[in-house]
Amino acid sequence: MDNQLPLFYGLSFLTVAIAFAFAAYLYLWVKKQKTVNKKIEEVSQLIKEGANTFMRREYAVLARFAIIAAIVILLLLPSPIWNGNVLDNIAMTLAYLAGTVLSAIAGKIGILVATLSNGRSAEAAKKGIKPAFLIGFRGGAVMGLLVVGCSLFGVAAVLMLTGNASILLGFSFGASSLALFAKAGGGIFTKTADISADLTGKVELGIPEDDPRNPAVIADNVGDNVGDVAGMGADLFDSNVAAMASALVIAQSLSGGEYANISMVFCYAILGLLASIIGIATARIGKHGNPTKALNSSTYVTTGIFLVLTAAATALFPGFSWRIWGAAAVGLLVGVIIGITTDYFTDDSKPIVKKVAHASQSGPAFTVLSGVSYGFISALPAMAGIAVSALIAYQLCAPMGEGYAIFGISMAAVGMLSIVGMIISNDAYGPIVDNARGLAEMGGLGEETIRTADELDSAGNTVKAVTKGFSIGAAGLTVISLLGAFMSEANDALVLAGREPITGFDIMSPTVFFGILIGAAIPAVFSAMLILGVDKNAQRMVAEIHRQFKTIAGLKEGRKGVKPDYGKCIDIATSGALKELIPAGLMSIAATVAVGLIGGPLAIGGFLLGNIVSGLLIALFMSNAGGLWDNAKKYVESGEEGGKGSDAHKAAVIGDTVGDPFKDTAGPSINTQITVVSLVASLLSSLFVAFSLFG
Amino acid sequence: MDNQLPLFYGLSFLTVAIAFAFAAYLYLWVKKQKTVNKKIEEVSQLIKEGANTFMRREYAVLARFAIIAAIVILLLLPSPIWNGNVLDNIAMTLAYLAGTVLSAIAGKIGILVATLSNGRSAEAAKKGIKPAFLIGFRGGAVMGLLVVGCSLFGVAAVLMLTGNASILLGFSFGASSLALFAKAGGGIFTKTADISADLTGKVELGIPEDDPRNPAVIADNVGDNVGDVAGMGADLFDSNVAAMASALVIAQSLSGGEYANISMVFCYAILGLLASIIGIATARIGKHGNPTKALNSSTYVTTGIFLVLTAAATALFPGFSWRIWGAAAVGLLVGVIIGITTDYFTDDSKPIVKKVAHASQSGPAFTVLSGVSYGFISALPAMAGIAVSALIAYQLCAPMGEGYAIFGISMAAVGMLSIVGMIISNDAYGPIVDNARGLAEMGGLGEETIRTADELDSAGNTVKAVTKGFSIGAAGLTVISLLGAFMSEANDALVLAGREPITGFDIMSPTVFFGILIGAAIPAVFSAMLILGVDKNAQRMVAEIHRQFKTIAGLKEGRKGVKPDYGKCIDIATSGALKELIPAGLMSIAATVAVGLIGGPLAIGGFLLGNIVSGLLIALFMSNAGGLWDNAKKYVESGEEGGKGSDAHKAAVIGDTVGDPFKDTAGPSINTQITVVSLVASLLSSLFVAFSLFG
Repeated sequence: MDNQLPLFYGLSFLTVAIAFAFAAYLYLWVKKQKTVNKKIEEVSQLIKEGANTFMRREYAVLARFAIIAAIVILLLLPSPIWNGNVLDNIAMTLAYLAGTVLSAIAGKIGILVATLSNGRSAEAAKKGIKPAFLIGFRGGAVMGLLVVGCSLFGVAAVLMLTGNASILLGFSFGASSLALFAKAGGGIFTKTADISADLTGKVELGIPEDDPRNPAVIADNVGDNVGDVAGMGADLFDSNVAAMASALVIAQSLSGGEYANISMVFCYAILGLLASIIGIATARIGKHGNPTKALNSSTYVTTGIFLVLTAAATALFPGFSWRIWGAAAVGLLVGVIIGITTDYFTDDSKPIVKKVAHASQSGPAFTVLSGVSYGFISALPAMAGIAVSALIAYQLCAPMGEGYAIFGISMAAVGMLSIVGMIISNDAYGPIVDNARGLAEMGGLGEETIRTADELDSAGNTVKAVTKGFSIGAAGLTVISLLGAFMSEANDALVLAGREPITGFDIMSPTVFFGILIGAAIPAVFSAMLILGVDKNAQRMVAEIHRQFKTIAGLKEGRKGVKPDYGKCIDIATSGALKELIPAGLMSIAATVAVGLIGGPLAIGGFLLGNIVSGLLIALFMSNAGGLWDNAKKYVESGEEGGKGSDAHKAAVIGDTVGDPFKDTAGPSINTQITVVSLVASLLSSLFVAFSLFG
Repeated sequence: MDNQLPLFYGLSFLTVAIAFAFAAYLYLWVKKQKTVNKKIEEVSQLIKEGANTFMRREYAVLARFAIIAAIVILLLLPSPIWNGNVLDNIAMTLAYLAGTVLSAIAGKIGILVATLSNGRSAEAAKKGIKPAFLIGFRGGAVMGLLVVGCSLFGVAAVLMLTGNASILLGFSFGASSLALFAKAGGGIFTKTADISADLTGKVELGIPEDDPRNPAVIADNVGDNVGDVAGMGADLFDSNVAAMASALVIAQSLSGGEYANISMVFCYAILGLLASIIGIATARIGKHGNPTKALNSSTYVTTGIFLVLTAAATALFPGFSWRIWGAAAVGLLVGVIIGITTDYFTDDSKPIVKKVAHASQSGPAFTVLSGVSYGFISALPAMAGIAVSALIAYQLCAPMGEGYAIFGISMAAVGMLSIVGMIISNDAYGPIVDNARGLAEMGGLGEETIRTADELDSAGNTVKAVTKGFSIGAAGLTVISLLGAFMSEANDALVLAGREPITGFDIMSPTVFFGILIGAAIPAVFSAMLILGVDKNAQRMVAEIHRQFKTIAGLKEGRKGVKPDYGKCIDIATSGALKELIPAGLMSIAATVAVGLIGGPLAIGGFLLGNIVSGLLIALFMSNAGGLWDNAKKYVESGEEGGKGSDAHKAAVIGDTVGDPFKDTAGPSINTQITVVSLVASLLSSLFVAFSLFG
């Protein structure tokens, strides 16, 4: 009875068109803001070039990976080409490539608009919080609208053209695999530059954060763009696609009956995008307003609008179930709650950050120990939130019929990600105003302007913690539904092979248990590899900075006309990141394949579970501990616990340096690692059914 | 056909008697070693008094806890006293109390012999490695023999008297609950003192580690005894009892048939103790021998003897299966392999420690980041080892009949712990020679003797990492079998209530999944609470040390006759530890009860799984990272990477301080936390069946 589907395809494309048009309007609005400062324009240009060079080289590496993966997919998926339907394999390959290309475009456009907005926001900061905020926010919103638009467009197009939701897994895998490497590569780049700039500048020489004498300062600003804008865009593109894809795979496998499940998924995605558009359009800040409040209140407005619109749609359209609405609402609300608890642990007006700042008075070991401890504790409420929302969504939807319980969980993930357009806008705002702060300093815009930029920047940091909570939570729920998708794919293969289908993954089975233990170790090893990548790379860059200060006469003293070789630092960050980004991702994929070939589908079920559980734990720990340390340092710098230059400050800087790769390299890459592993498992399920040692 | 059981009860008591007699002989041998140095005797006395005071106050707190727990057990377990068999409840209560008392005795005697051996070992170090090593090792062996003897005696006596293996769970819970608090309390005490002494002495004043001017120096030495000797003894007593108890619960639930399962468990335990006795008796070191090699080779000798003896017994006795022998052998071998990989990550002659030491040159943030990364990576081989041994043990024993597969896993745990007598001897050796090093310095025995003591101490550190790998691995396997024990207990209750028994815990069930996520967060929160306890307590003690240096005239300068107030520091460590030891343990127990009451037995199954998986990961991470940092610091102190006083050294000291509560407070307490939670779940299974919100 899902005969409304053509309507929703139409509405999807219409909404995407509206979103793109609105993004274009915002882009032009940002573009027409005045720029006059030559120095800022020049540095801005350097940042843009650096970012574009990195992206070009990174995409060149990733294109090779994508082509190899595409060939493998063409030959093997959904079933080996020599005994299957050739057209299906071609469709899957094209969907995969479309996923990679759309992901790359989202990242590319994000960089374009971010490097356009940063200088303009810096100059606007001369006039106060309000105009600078609006430029930063609207720049971010262009990215948010495009990412969500691309994902809705891609999913709707693939499903409309193929009619086969399984093909969506290929599209989703394209998005994820690119996101995995983009996030890892960007994350390594940005933290290499950030840590090296801080250590040599702030700690050794005692010069300010964005002092133009520091050879790593441009690389640091480039890093904000390639790591936080492009990487984060790819990440949320991927999460959003994965959530929709898994919901649609499950929806298609349901008997349907009286329910219009597929239409409902699209309807909710459309309304989420509409709610985000309204939220973005109405975002406001007073002349002396608080930017954190402004960002958060637009999130709450969007949440409210989404809930009202979806309730109306559920009442209006035949075959839309209130139970499913409940599941989506629970997902969204739990996302908000996770955000609030994350905020509690990482906001410097709350007690935890103050405690860590206070512990810094006893030395850096205490900064690290207390940050690690609170980071671990902060994982509990978020994990409990995910657990409870899965439980409620399941219980709500189970009475609708067989398979609906797991569909409910997938709709909770869709609900949690429904306002992702808003989330990305807030998130991309962060690096833009971070850059603006740097440009204000390098352009010599004066103390007052830098202070304004600082305030905008600090809001970006706080809000980032909240949005990370959202994306980790959504990854958790999505992967549960991907586990369901994996089971249904594996069962198709098992039934084809004339074997008994799997009814579940019992933890008492040693094969499942084997998978669980290995799966749980993978996120730990994955994040360790990324952190070691940053570690190695930063050591190289620190050596280069030392060399420049030693050999370039007059650089340290700031003699007029003497400039560091910014390009060399960008180059080190780039080549290091490109070298280190592949192994960790490949290790995760290889481990999945190895476990599948040893233990078969049962082991893979356990593997995915272990991976989710420890992935969530480590991601939450790392993201929150990192945010905590960053803000504890800012809190000390605001004059507390001895203020700048005190021993507590030195200890807090060390904490922040430890936290940098935690929160911006490893932590946020884990989501993507979890998703990629789940998709690989689903895609290769028939392989694991056919060949496995103990399966 | 298990009619040989009386024989094995008899042999158990006989072997225990031999072990006790041998322990008495070693004790007297240590006691008759000469002591002449007045200063050492005086300090030794202070350490002994401090340790005894702490133990007295700790046991006073624990006795109150034990009495409350005993009353609850008497009223409710195995079934509510008002509708069950009163005698069973009395038996369970008495078994519980016996478990706590034997655990306390093991700890107490350990302290006695350790405080006897430390001074003697210091004085013997004047004559060289050999005599000092023997005193340290034999002192440790007294503890090892007593702990294993007590556990075999207790288990055999409880089973012989009651004939009901379920009662053993009560005995095991007594041992575990005491171990949980003793390990946490001792761990907080020892690291409070260690960190405070290092920070104020080594870092601030630049005085040597065990300088008698430092007010915390005696507290530090007391800590080695109450944390590493008493705490570790309680921990391994608990692991050993839990492994045997779960194997026996499963063995009793098996149909038996042609197999003599219960006899086999006792036989292997007896032979493990005999092998340890032989290993201890034959431990030798050359005049200029390497103590690490001597300790490790006795471990290998014991392993070999155990394998040969058990093979002989398996051939000899009717109803002993080679498959079970295989499972035990796999467990033991995997234990050894885990030990070797742990050694690879933590030994300073291997590359990892050198890399971390090298990273320290770039500053403490890199020490921390690289240590965290390698700590995470080090978890993979151990977890894979546990996974593979469980898989092999299961596959080996599954053909023997229903239920044998899980019995095989429990026998792998028994095998891994079979040589625990040897393990404890090696482990208790560590704090004794650590104390000896301190006494050699405080007694003014000269550079040469201190160097000898240093060498002995460093061997203790390396071997400690290996033994920790063993106890974590064994905890992992034991808890899998406790999961089996929980399921069988829960099913008894379900069948009694006229409900369907559980056939497994499917991770696709949201109730199980809910339990898994909460369970996975608990070890993180638990370890965070302990670390924060150390953190807070150390801040108090550092303040006290600063006060003493400020107010006691001539103390800093080392004027003759001026002494610090050692007692005040011991007092701070004691009261802090007693305050902080209860909440973390209670939180774990309360979380188990809460999850059980919300989600019933299915949620508890998931909870236990999540708890094991993340517990293993965090415990391995923390123990190995801590060991790694400790040895990286020692490596730098040996003159590498700039040597003592260099920036790399300062960074390495910070890494070591972070690692201290990781490896000696939180990491090793997690085993016990996992075991306690599993036992609580098994004991309360009928409660969760009767009352639960969603179960």
